[in-house]
Amino acid sequence: MRALRLTAWKSDPELVEVDQPHPEAGQVVVKVGAAGACHSDLHLMRDFSDDGPVPWHPPFTLGHENAGWVHEIGSGVTGFEVGQPVAVYGPWGCGVCAHCARGFDTYCENPAAAPVPGGGGGLGMDGGMAEYLLVPAARHLVPLPDGLDPLRAAPLTDAALTPYHAIRRSSAELTPGSTAVVIGAGGLGHLAVQILTATTAARVIAVDLRAEALELAASAGADHTLRSDENAAQAIRDATGGHGADAIFDCVGTDQTLALGAAAGRVLGDLTVIGIGGGTLPVSFFSVPYELSVQTTYWGGRYELAEVLDLAARGLLHAETTTFALDDAVEAYHRLERGEITGRAVVVP
Amino acid sequence: MRALRLTAWKSDPELVEVDQPHPEAGQVVVKVGAAGACHSDLHLMRDFSDDGPVPWHPPFTLGHENAGWVHEIGSGVTGFEVGQPVAVYGPWGCGVCAHCARGFDTYCENPAAAPVPGGGGGLGMDGGMAEYLLVPAARHLVPLPDGLDPLRAAPLTDAALTPYHAIRRSSAELTPGSTAVVIGAGGLGHLAVQILTATTAARVIAVDLRAEALELAASAGADHTLRSDENAAQAIRDATGGHGADAIFDCVGTDQTLALGAAAGRVLGDLTVIGIGGGTLPVSFFSVPYELSVQTTYWGGRYELAEVLDLAARGLLHAETTTFALDDAVEAYHRLERGEITGRAVVVP
Amino acid sequence: MRALRLTAWKSDPELVEVDQPHPEAGQVVVKVGAAGACHSDLHLMRDFSDDGPVPWHPPFTLGHENAGWVHEIGSGVTGFEVGQPVAVYGPWGCGVCAHCARGFDTYCENPAAAPVPGGGGGLGMDGGMAEYLLVPAARHLVPLPDGLDPLRAAPLTDAALTPYHAIRRSSAELTPGSTAVVIGAGGLGHLAVQILTATTAARVIAVDLRAEALELAASAGADHTLRSDENAAQAIRDATGGHGADAIFDCVGTDQTLALGAAAGRVLGDLTVIGIGGGTLPVSFFSVPYELSVQTTYWGGRYELAEVLDLAARGLLHAETTTFALDDAVEAYHRLERGEITGRAVVVP
Amino acid sequence: MRALRLTAWKSDPELVEVDQPHPEAGQVVVKVGAAGACHSDLHLMRDFSDDGPVPWHPPFTLGHENAGWVHEIGSGVTGFEVGQPVAVYGPWGCGVCAHCARGFDTYCENPAAAPVPGGGGGLGMDGGMAEYLLVPAARHLVPLPDGLDPLRAAPLTDAALTPYHAIRRSSAELTPGSTAVVIGAGGLGHLAVQILTATTAARVIAVDLRAEALELAASAGADHTLRSDENAAQAIRDATGGHGADAIFDCVGTDQTLALGAAAGRVLGDLTVIGIGGGTLPVSFFSVPYELSVQTTYWGGRYELAEVLDLAARGLLHAETTTFALDDAVEAYHRLERGEITGRAVVVP
Repeated sequence: MRALRLTAWKSDPELVEVDQPHPEAGQVVVKVGAAGACHSDLHLMRDFSDDGPVPWHPPFTLGHENAGWVHEIGSGVTGFEVGQPVAVYGPWGCGVCAHCARGFDTYCENPAAAPVPGGGGGLGMDGGMAEYLLVPAARHLVPLPDGLDPLRAAPLTDAALTPYHAIRRSSAELTPGSTAVVIGAGGLGHLAVQILTATTAARVIAVDLRAEALELAASAGADHTLRSDENAAQAIRDATGGHGADAIFDCVGTDQTLALGAAAGRVLGDLTVIGIGGGTLPVSFFSVPYELSVQTTYWGGRYELAEVLDLAARGLLHAETTTFALDDAVEAYHRLERGEITGRAVVVP
Repeated sequence: MRALRLTAWKSDPELVEVDQPHPEAGQVVVKVGAAGACHSDLHLMRDFSDDGPVPWHPPFTLGHENAGWVHEIGSGVTGFEVGQPVAVYGPWGCGVCAHCARGFDTYCENPAAAPVPGGGGGLGMDGGMAEYLLVPAARHLVPLPDGLDPLRAAPLTDAALTPYHAIRRSSAELTPGSTAVVIGAGGLGHLAVQILTATTAARVIAVDLRAEALELAASAGADHTLRSDENAAQAIRDATGGHGADAIFDCVGTDQTLALGAAAGRVLGDLTVIGIGGGTLPVSFFSVPYELSVQTTYWGGRYELAEVLDLAARGLLHAETTTFALDDAVEAYHRLERGEITGRAVVVP
Repeated sequence: MRALRLTAWKSDPELVEVDQPHPEAGQVVVKVGAAGACHSDLHLMRDFSDDGPVPWHPPFTLGHENAGWVHEIGSGVTGFEVGQPVAVYGPWGCGVCAHCARGFDTYCENPAAAPVPGGGGGLGMDGGMAEYLLVPAARHLVPLPDGLDPLRAAPLTDAALTPYHAIRRSSAELTPGSTAVVIGAGGLGHLAVQILTATTAARVIAVDLRAEALELAASAGADHTLRSDENAAQAIRDATGGHGADAIFDCVGTDQTLALGAAAGRVLGDLTVIGIGGGTLPVSFFSVPYELSVQTTYWGGRYELAEVLDLAARGLLHAETTTFALDDAVEAYHRLERGEITGRAVVVP
Repeated sequence: MRALRLTAWKSDPELVEVDQPHPEAGQVVVKVGAAGACHSDLHLMRDFSDDGPVPWHPPFTLGHENAGWVHEIGSGVTGFEVGQPVAVYGPWGCGVCAHCARGFDTYCENPAAAPVPGGGGGLGMDGGMAEYLLVPAARHLVPLPDGLDPLRAAPLTDAALTPYHAIRRSSAELTPGSTAVVIGAGGLGHLAVQILTATTAARVIAVDLRAEALELAASAGADHTLRSDENAAQAIRDATGGHGADAIFDCVGTDQTLALGAAAGRVLGDLTVIGIGGGTLPVSFFSVPYELSVQTTYWGGRYELAEVLDLAARGLLHAETTTFALDDAVEAYHRLERGEITGRAVVVP
């Protein structure tokens, strides 16, 4: 079969012929229906090396946002049948530690016992940019609900699961009367706006530098949109009776956006950093509101993916996609790199 | 001023002339904009006596669902101004005990120190079916958000706050992919459907005997409606992949509806009894699903009322009302008793 | 190897020679260090039949409370090594459904995909009353912390995990100033007292009919002990300033104890039924305090077992045991049946 | 009566004669039994000015840690009686806003409606270093449980309530098997150790520079003590199987201790800053563990004070005190300033 493989750090991936995988006991092979091309793959091709920041290295097939159909089932696997449409939960942990036991392979505490330490398919192991994908444990498969096909599901496994997890952990703050701020209304951000609108009655304020991103946020359900400038924090305070925002989801993560988040947050609120913009927030007793909790998040949990897919199947969550054939996958990354793709690029093998 | 007073148990209220109240220190007088006529008032007029079930007794002015404008402010009260529109939180506790300290006067544990033990305005003390209402502590006033007038707010202080509190305590169960069942799609029930739709992404199934109630539930946002018969529990299981419903809100509370709730509930779910239908559910180790928690609820909390009003101000929650003048208030109760009123009866003094 | 097998319903188990198990991929064989003899096994021998209440049937080896040492590791299993001491999490679910994904195989929602539907080792599949135990998935192994041996660990996997789970779900109620009541201070109950004392600052009241059980509870750390009679509910109210108990753990589960729990509970509290005494509690709007949630629980979660073992390793939780050789296992059950065993009976193969 | 008043910024307080207060409606006068002399009072005397950081200013009587007996009760106040021993909840908010409604006057969002904006007795208004203290609302009184006198209670209202609130908000992390780290084992820190030991089964590691502080922590129940040096973070990781600490309470708050907290924290844990040491933690995506939430806290809630007093009454929480007469109060502050006082300095009028 053909597969788009990263063969070395700091290089473009190559479309090559490889053996089709077959499952051993406990494993499942999925016929890939769609594999998302993610911005973070560009870091793999351009920035990473054996010096870091990840403990694994090429060669491996790209593609960590995957969905398709169960194709071949290893011995001992029950509860799935050939042809069943599934999404693939991306982070593959040990399955046994305290975090994996709760469905959070993202935070696996025994990476030495995982199939790949701190990675998954397309992240150190063969991913979904190929005709078939070997999934090392059946628990990573999440059945697609009726009405959701692999093409629509694949990009949600990362681009929607990441903001979903961040929003869900703030659900106690997001009561009626509360305000949520989404900083950065692009790929993850406009999905964050949809998730907030679908799952809470919080007012949603979207902040961005780009007028078209703010229009996207408004069409996704944001109650207010704000240009990200030096007045934004005050505008958020004005819109919240002076209290500040109960939860802020920073999908950008630069010094400027983090400072905006801290300035616009409410006492007892949450400032959650999703975007890896390289910024730093100096936290001191007097620089942030009391009990505004500041934290990063990384991807999401296994049962949370099922919840994301349910939202999408009901029409409450939708990611724009541009589709590419496997032959055009390298071109897809090049266009992604040049900022020429609307929505998520998805490769359909 | 005129006031509709219950002067004795087991009698109709009378419209009489009384002195206009003036506030002492810490108190506020509200010019009544609207006072809801609640079904439970009929129990006061028909069923209650000095033998029970309440520790207080006539005479007092009726009306426990009240909103209006701040009219006169007692010394020591700050943060309010004359003319400001407010809703009145109905249950008036001691203000000091562990439950009052968290905003739940409903469950005051020092009733001897409350203005009336286990009651409030219209429930043992003078209520809002008069031109002016004396509120014994400023904390019971909740400012009306922009866009909400006393007429729309008054019935929400009870008919919406009650299901809102029940739903909010189940919020951890009401994730995407979950199912909520509302049994009884009438007054409280159709508000429960709206609250669920506005604040969660749970699927909502409404169950009722009456076709018109099911239509009301559908128009309020229910995903499915079901006739309440011997097949209803199985239909709910079928609609949930066999799992049962994550949260069931029984707004009826008869033997039959409680049994339906227990039969349709999911392991680890909630069965919350809101309706005072006089029913009993026999709970044993094998008659209800594991860890389905069964509980009653009563009214709601002070900050929850602010949340309810916010939903209404944003257009996410709406109670149909039929308006009556104070002169027609007795007639309003008679029509309520005969089931002739659409939505909530509201008296506008 | 030798194994104590239940070969038919309504019969004593027999000690027979069977083949030693070897692991397939994903599986682990444990050399049994200790296997608890549980009261519920007596129901298997005496009461159950193909008519119910369980969906599985003999023959199988008894023993669902197991600990020992990793003996042989199937392919694909990582993170364990031969000789490592482990406890075995007893309920074996599908590993994939929403409940298994969070570590609660107890409530597996896809039993058709589990090794045995609604069971585990010693419950429909071969258990630990043998020299070796085949564990069908590595995730069921919980490493023993330093200082805890299989003999002390085995009975905790059920007798301590069950009350631990019930108590942990009430942790929000068990603040300083709160009161917990344990009804039934025997096997599970005296462990419940220890768990409450170790993990909360709640006052603990133990209730029992038997003076020696109350002495055991007092030595386990109960603040008060009460004879279970018609005055017990009032005595609990008196001891709690009239409020009632915040959380009640009924380890008996008869009509009488359930009624006591409902009468002694506090508004907003928990009444959790652990004991399978066959009782029924009639729940109606006026028969239980407002928002006292009533629920059963069954066993506990995988990560909760790790927490239980940690308590034991630190000396905060201790089950009295009486040890039997495999040759004497049938005799152990007979003595258990006659009530002649102090603490838990544990078989050491 | 005599009162120790701060008459101007940047000056010592003076013992002067003032009128005895009498309560208006809703108010209560407390005969002071004990008033703690707090380090933060030294900032009032030495560092603050009309330029900040507080919105109020002298003159006022010092003393924000107060307990005594109800002396005179204003009209409309119920539920208290003359002579009853009470602690005084220190932060006095508006009583109506969303935070006050939940018992958190600390975070009052309508300070313009509070008796003093962002303060309380001894903080902008007359405090407890006098014979009598006027409490502006009965809800600030917390009855002393049996067995606790005002002398022992007074310092707990701040020095214990502050770490208690921080610890309680992390209770979900502090399960058996978890590790809590207390940085700074002095006044607040050694109370934090006691609170953790009494209310959780977490392992407690105390970190300090001073050997005597570590001894105090050990005697207060810490499982491990560590000298605060460049190896401390690694020592904490080693003691936690490499995972890091689940909750870290930094009672110092310098650059060094905050960096230690971030380096020693576990994924999904809490780093809570209690100490106002003037430090700053740079938070970026790669400098702190995933989802380690970082936040400050300020004092605590009204019902939390009741919980603290319950711990003390049961002997689970004890603050060392050194007692001074009102005549010696200035001297008490001088000795406090010179670091010559063991435990908390308490003035007994």
